[in-house]
Amino acid sequence: MVTKDSAATKRRILSAARAEFAEYGIAGARIARIAAAAACNKQLIYAYFGDKDGLYRAVHAEIVAQVTEAVPFDAEDLAGYAVRLFDFHASAPDVHRLTRWAELERPAAAVSAAGAEATARKIEAIRRAQRAGKVTSDRAADEILLLVLGLAGLGAPGTPEAAYNDDPERFRRMIRRAVTDLVG
Amino acid sequence: MVTKDSAATKRRILSAARAEFAEYGIAGARIARIAAAAACNKQLIYAYFGDKDGLYRAVHAEIVAQVTEAVPFDAEDLAGYAVRLFDFHASAPDVHRLTRWAELERPAAAVSAAGAEATARKIEAIRRAQRAGKVTSDRAADEILLLVLGLAGLGAPGTPEAAYNDDPERFRRMIRRAVTDLVG
Repeated sequence: MVTKDSAATKRRILSAARAEFAEYGIAGARIARIAAAAACNKQLIYAYFGDKDGLYRAVHAEIVAQVTEAVPFDAEDLAGYAVRLFDFHASAPDVHRLTRWAELERPAAAVSAAGAEATARKIEAIRRAQRAGKVTSDRAADEILLLVLGLAGLGAPGTPEAAYNDDPERFRRMIRRAVTDLVG
Repeated sequence: MVTKDSAATKRRILSAARAEFAEYGIAGARIARIAAAAACNKQLIYAYFGDKDGLYRAVHAEIVAQVTEAVPFDAEDLAGYAVRLFDFHASAPDVHRLTRWAELERPAAAVSAAGAEATARKIEAIRRAQRAGKVTSDRAADEILLLVLGLAGLGAPGTPEAAYNDDPERFRRMIRRAVTDLVG
């Protein structure tokens, strides 16, 4: 039985783990620091999440759900979607770091089953928009998705170009215009 | 006096360090493993390079020089430059990993003085090409550079989209066309 207390404890552990993984990556994360930050003991973390990898997977699932909810994909407004994705990353810099660590430390997991499914759904939505004449049919749907995601990621926190990003509005304009020019 | 032997030893250390940093990042790298791979003792590494950070900086300087030499910037052929940069990363996957680790572990160093100078030179070259009418003046020079580098990085080893990259020629075509459409 999940009591209110245990749900609150799990929440505290996940929140502490997210900060720890974002800062130090998977190999560098320390369960002892997470336990201290969550004010619980290490054994409880192992009981709830198995090992460090299990805990990382729980954090990863949480951020995938968060991005999906915060920035719904919109095949009929790809420029707007790209700008909203840029804004989301600006507001949650840990997401970009967590993703980058996973790419380096767990290359296979970086393309998780959930992620691959979400990608397939986006490509299918672009195909439908192409058939409806709302997106150019001049490029393949999967290429359009790559270009949109690539352009949306420019200037995200943690990228080298973010250092020049003292004017987010300029980045928004640049991304909106580039996506419109390529796929509008 | 630098003898032939010490130059060869330094070379072996740098090569082993490059592989170690690419695999494990800066925090995860172990001087003992580098010494073993380079068949020298740890003290020699400290004598030559100072600490682990000094060794990382030496590796970083080496890859910056390698990219600059292998893929000279060409403001008058930005699409060709982007494709050559894509090909370079495909041929040297460790460069992309080394860069990503530095972004996560040494955010300030990721935009090193040498890197900032190289960026300024590229932007100046684009401005000259704009004045000569060889590149569109419809976008700011620094935005053009960001777009070109962003598009060139699509599908690089270690990025999630690389998992879909079983056809490099398709990526080359996509990058060439997108850069041409945006800035040609």
